[in-house]
Amino acid sequence: MSKDIKKVVLAYSGGLDTSVILKWIALTYNCEVVTLTADLGQEEDLDGVDAKALATGASRAYVEDLREEFARDFIYPMMRANAVYEGRYLLGTSIARPLIAKRLVEIAHQEGAQAVAHGATGKGNDQVRFELAAMALDPRLKVIAPWREWNFRSRTDLTNFAQEHGIPLPVAASRKQYSMDRNMLHCSFEGGELEDPWSEPLEGSYLMAVPMEKAPDTPEYIELEYLNGDAVALNGEQLSPAAMIKALNTLGGKHGIGRLDMVENRFVGIKSRGVYETPGGTILYNAHRDLEGICLDRESMHLRDSLITRYSECVYNGFWFAPEREALQKLIDETQRNVTGTVRMKLYKGHAVPVGRKSPYSLYRMDLATFEEDEVYNQADAAGFIRLQGLRLLGYKK
Amino acid sequence: MSKDIKKVVLAYSGGLDTSVILKWIALTYNCEVVTLTADLGQEEDLDGVDAKALATGASRAYVEDLREEFARDFIYPMMRANAVYEGRYLLGTSIARPLIAKRLVEIAHQEGAQAVAHGATGKGNDQVRFELAAMALDPRLKVIAPWREWNFRSRTDLTNFAQEHGIPLPVAASRKQYSMDRNMLHCSFEGGELEDPWSEPLEGSYLMAVPMEKAPDTPEYIELEYLNGDAVALNGEQLSPAAMIKALNTLGGKHGIGRLDMVENRFVGIKSRGVYETPGGTILYNAHRDLEGICLDRESMHLRDSLITRYSECVYNGFWFAPEREALQKLIDETQRNVTGTVRMKLYKGHAVPVGRKSPYSLYRMDLATFEEDEVYNQADAAGFIRLQGLRLLGYKK
Amino acid sequence: MSKDIKKVVLAYSGGLDTSVILKWIALTYNCEVVTLTADLGQEEDLDGVDAKALATGASRAYVEDLREEFARDFIYPMMRANAVYEGRYLLGTSIARPLIAKRLVEIAHQEGAQAVAHGATGKGNDQVRFELAAMALDPRLKVIAPWREWNFRSRTDLTNFAQEHGIPLPVAASRKQYSMDRNMLHCSFEGGELEDPWSEPLEGSYLMAVPMEKAPDTPEYIELEYLNGDAVALNGEQLSPAAMIKALNTLGGKHGIGRLDMVENRFVGIKSRGVYETPGGTILYNAHRDLEGICLDRESMHLRDSLITRYSECVYNGFWFAPEREALQKLIDETQRNVTGTVRMKLYKGHAVPVGRKSPYSLYRMDLATFEEDEVYNQADAAGFIRLQGLRLLGYKK
Amino acid sequence: MSKDIKKVVLAYSGGLDTSVILKWIALTYNCEVVTLTADLGQEEDLDGVDAKALATGASRAYVEDLREEFARDFIYPMMRANAVYEGRYLLGTSIARPLIAKRLVEIAHQEGAQAVAHGATGKGNDQVRFELAAMALDPRLKVIAPWREWNFRSRTDLTNFAQEHGIPLPVAASRKQYSMDRNMLHCSFEGGELEDPWSEPLEGSYLMAVPMEKAPDTPEYIELEYLNGDAVALNGEQLSPAAMIKALNTLGGKHGIGRLDMVENRFVGIKSRGVYETPGGTILYNAHRDLEGICLDRESMHLRDSLITRYSECVYNGFWFAPEREALQKLIDETQRNVTGTVRMKLYKGHAVPVGRKSPYSLYRMDLATFEEDEVYNQADAAGFIRLQGLRLLGYKK
Repeated sequence: MSKDIKKVVLAYSGGLDTSVILKWIALTYNCEVVTLTADLGQEEDLDGVDAKALATGASRAYVEDLREEFARDFIYPMMRANAVYEGRYLLGTSIARPLIAKRLVEIAHQEGAQAVAHGATGKGNDQVRFELAAMALDPRLKVIAPWREWNFRSRTDLTNFAQEHGIPLPVAASRKQYSMDRNMLHCSFEGGELEDPWSEPLEGSYLMAVPMEKAPDTPEYIELEYLNGDAVALNGEQLSPAAMIKALNTLGGKHGIGRLDMVENRFVGIKSRGVYETPGGTILYNAHRDLEGICLDRESMHLRDSLITRYSECVYNGFWFAPEREALQKLIDETQRNVTGTVRMKLYKGHAVPVGRKSPYSLYRMDLATFEEDEVYNQADAAGFIRLQGLRLLGYKK
Repeated sequence: MSKDIKKVVLAYSGGLDTSVILKWIALTYNCEVVTLTADLGQEEDLDGVDAKALATGASRAYVEDLREEFARDFIYPMMRANAVYEGRYLLGTSIARPLIAKRLVEIAHQEGAQAVAHGATGKGNDQVRFELAAMALDPRLKVIAPWREWNFRSRTDLTNFAQEHGIPLPVAASRKQYSMDRNMLHCSFEGGELEDPWSEPLEGSYLMAVPMEKAPDTPEYIELEYLNGDAVALNGEQLSPAAMIKALNTLGGKHGIGRLDMVENRFVGIKSRGVYETPGGTILYNAHRDLEGICLDRESMHLRDSLITRYSECVYNGFWFAPEREALQKLIDETQRNVTGTVRMKLYKGHAVPVGRKSPYSLYRMDLATFEEDEVYNQADAAGFIRLQGLRLLGYKK
Repeated sequence: MSKDIKKVVLAYSGGLDTSVILKWIALTYNCEVVTLTADLGQEEDLDGVDAKALATGASRAYVEDLREEFARDFIYPMMRANAVYEGRYLLGTSIARPLIAKRLVEIAHQEGAQAVAHGATGKGNDQVRFELAAMALDPRLKVIAPWREWNFRSRTDLTNFAQEHGIPLPVAASRKQYSMDRNMLHCSFEGGELEDPWSEPLEGSYLMAVPMEKAPDTPEYIELEYLNGDAVALNGEQLSPAAMIKALNTLGGKHGIGRLDMVENRFVGIKSRGVYETPGGTILYNAHRDLEGICLDRESMHLRDSLITRYSECVYNGFWFAPEREALQKLIDETQRNVTGTVRMKLYKGHAVPVGRKSPYSLYRMDLATFEEDEVYNQADAAGFIRLQGLRLLGYKK
Repeated sequence: MSKDIKKVVLAYSGGLDTSVILKWIALTYNCEVVTLTADLGQEEDLDGVDAKALATGASRAYVEDLREEFARDFIYPMMRANAVYEGRYLLGTSIARPLIAKRLVEIAHQEGAQAVAHGATGKGNDQVRFELAAMALDPRLKVIAPWREWNFRSRTDLTNFAQEHGIPLPVAASRKQYSMDRNMLHCSFEGGELEDPWSEPLEGSYLMAVPMEKAPDTPEYIELEYLNGDAVALNGEQLSPAAMIKALNTLGGKHGIGRLDMVENRFVGIKSRGVYETPGGTILYNAHRDLEGICLDRESMHLRDSLITRYSECVYNGFWFAPEREALQKLIDETQRNVTGTVRMKLYKGHAVPVGRKSPYSLYRMDLATFEEDEVYNQADAAGFIRLQGLRLLGYKK
């Protein structure tokens, strides 16, 4: 192992895996380990996580509340883009990684560390997201990815190592059949019993939202206000980005909104089956697209729509701190200049349905849409319009 | 008016508008009018529509069942593309127009007519769709669009003309506040009370599906089998395309599936608010995309996804018989070669949720997706993969 | 004709056509006509054009030097995009129209005019470009397009009208077989003898550049410096955008650079044959793309490249003052942040060949490109990279 | 090393590098080596290359003429797409690799080999192209890439190994400063003195074409006939694809056509400087695009143009036997159905300029393009066309 590495900053959750990693790095690299535990709204109790890190061998343990930064600088820009991977996945896990990587690098600078480390496995997307962000932010930092380096062949090996080194095992560790990731935007599950794509996920794979069947029998209506593509108020109350997402998670969770079960294509070349919950994000996605219906010019919308796949690849594949993502963001943000207004949403048994929308910048004109005569639209114009549109097709299929 | 026009083939629904048009053309052009009434699954009683046409002055009245052709040659190719306009509209009205135009042109050839005619207004998309198809299919045929030609200023003018010429008025004509279009794929409403986009549509704007609230409290599971991107069997029973859509409409309608309320951008430059129901089409859309999750290669899928906006513009704008749509179709059909398999769907209160999928061509490999070691995937490969992916980003944000 | 129109601002070249138009509008609309003659670098003597306008009936004649605005705000942003229509045309005519329209609208505001007018025909692209810009800039202004309104059937009708109203005919009017447009970026010809696409254009269709055969037998080398995607210095001398284009036209013209003969697709649905000269613009295009080779990240470049067709459609079709063009511009300008450096060009008999390039932001690293070992690139990484890239293809063609 | 490998099929050029590789594999893997030397039109004398392979230790030496297959199944489909990488490179090296890989795999099957091997280095694109093709064609075959495996650190190590094992050194080996690749479509150089992108390439970097300065002072005109997008006859003589390319290379070479000097982005994340010659390919590229001007519908062309970047990435990155390339090819081939006709080209001092074009399927209509009145185009239609095009922009920039 490299002798140059004297200090490492590790993304630390407090769970078994990153505790093992903490100890393994310290032993293997014979170096100091500093931990970062970030509050991204995962709704876990982080009290005592620093003590646990220190007890497991960390020299220093950072515990940070990154919720507002996460919502404002990562989730909101992505929501402005209507990002969605492979038609369905709202990218809840993907969007959190660059922020964690950014803080790891910043702390490495503060601490004078030579490397950052993460607990993502060698088969998933998260390793790519962490490491690409780190490479973009500081190419001199090494990245340590223990899952790709060590010789543990199975979960049992891991457990043995933990017991050997006095790392407490979670009470229910043996029961857990799948891998889970949670932050303020979503909760994901994969692996274990979910690996058979023909089987319906068990109810236990969901945490944030009730099953649709158990949602209230009465719809609930809410009003969401947007400013330049960002949700800023709920039912008349101004909310910060993080507060907005939290509030919508509560509402969405109550109404069983935002569950998803799909097989997706990982960046590393594998297909995998994921189960996701994005209660608040789903409400925001639906509301945002609906508001665009009245605020966004047709060609801007279609142009942007044709780029959603590319933008979403950037987020999913870990190219957040990347020039192509930033160039796309400029285009997207430009389209959002007038996406300002209010959407009325009906929440009911898994649905978040827009039922009304209004905007000071509305391009929808009741006078134009009506079937009656008007000043602006001359029906005779349509004849010329169609004629020239069709000129290039004349007799094409004759 | 042109003296060259001696015979016209008119798309005739049997309703007030096209009856007025029939009479108006005959009088204005002093010509013979032949009518075509197509059964596209609109679930209207077409008995007697020919008699009505003849009574109103038609020289001949064609009534044709085009349901299988519609489903097989228009709806199914479009569904293979996952076509969706502005993120939400499944293009139910758009896709019917080229077929009607095609039959108008064919009958014009049989009948030796010089023109075809339609009842679409001068502000909508349908006029474009009819006319572009006619121009592509036979550039020598004139197109008559009475709504753009006559001097009627209001619905009262129309009613007066009808009464003057003995055209029977529908009993409830005065009540109808909006314009409706229905075929086997969907039912759409626009105009009238729907013109205020802030108001939630009244229940009366829906015909095909029950309100979600009135759907059964118990989910229903179905299995859909696909062959090369086309749905071919439902719960083990082989069904023709038209029979499949009809059966899924019944199921979707029962469970309140496929309603949509949105403001969209018309091709003629106006925004309009539409309310749509696509019960069976929504089930098909969701099932198809889900099956693609296991059958479609990642890059093929992303490439195709980036072209959905363009393909959908073709359909929406009326460029069906157009070289760019046909070129896109070739690409899309190539991607569907292995989209063969079965999707299990849960239908419940407006939802059509895929809960299981399998395929003889599945690219999903449980052995690869698992967290355990395997033969094919070497986790060490990921390090090199990431390193080269990030090479171009090194220090980009430093 | 509309009684509301009391004053019209006309784009006036001083030639026969716009002189006839001036008079025709004054007579037909019974209104005041104000003229705008813009110097866009067309290298025509504009002395006396105001007197001519006044003599032909204008109430006021603006003659304005718009060269710097044209170069800085229109040509340069377009060159940053590497805009090229249908693979070859550098959009020299297209880019001038929005600026003229903008000044027409501004003068209409100053003068309290109710309409603007142009001399473009009803079959070309220029009418669209003028009118879309005017609609975007002030929807209340009428647009008068005499070529679409009057009853002149031929050039003889026009000449007769001119003679009737004492408008002097150009000496060689009868000889001119084609339509010409010139500004600082280019000169175009179409019509007349050029209409047969099988015939090679005669030498007389070119004005700005010598035939390649007559260019010097010795190459000339120049150095172009760029800052953020804009050419700012030539052979070490800082030049304003307009001065740069003028200087490069001289160089390009001398070396026979930038001629083009092609059949293109007009926005109005017609194919037409055009002959173009863009001497300086061709040098800029080649130099800019070459510099991007060392300054632009791969994915930014490929993304931008995939949007050149769309951007160029915006310019060609007249959607300059349009939200989709402006959104694209934001993306493009973001990619140009580091396109700063120097390109060495060899000019020789129609060629403008980059032969050297350097940049303070160069992403090209000689240490990486070499075949010898290096610190950054580990050849073993390639194995993992390829392995994961190919995972989705395993056995695809077996 | 793997004991499973008993026989390897190696792509063998007869040069020093692949001779060393041959011997190294035989020794390192203790296995039989079968060689494939393909004639792809590289204009090298392949007589005796089999004897040399056998003398160096091969158990069998295949020497095959693949020129027609290369031209027909690889170059021509790619030329139909107007493929061009990063705006300039005609992909001459890239397109050869999948064919060689295909033959390696086929011979491996014939010979019962367990692996294929190539001589591409670990920093270039060719390794990716070989290996992705092999993975797609037979996932069970191992790929041996000695440049990534052995411990040679420099060219001296290689030479020493050669001398040790009696492999004859090329006379001028020490002089060669760059790496070269040649086949019937092009010749490329990189490395050595070319690594400084500010230096103009020396004349010695070109083999196929004379310097423009030394090309004849008199232009030469040729006529190229196309059928469905493929060049089929030159000056009235039918030629097979390979014969066509050979004949055009002679013509292009004589006139100094097709040289290129650029910095490009490799797939492996590095920028590199390449110098290319593609004499015949450049003539074909220019002629093909020009013929499309009269044969291809506007929207088909623009759609295809927007996909050239993607298609070219497929070829450049080695995804030839890949579903996305094949889907794109279907779209492209569909657009080429009527690209049939004749282009007249002027060849002169590095230029291949289309000067005339005609086609039985020409969509160019002289009657429409003319400024005079016609039957088909009604100028009044333009007013309606523009009006509706601009409706969405009304007042956008006010």
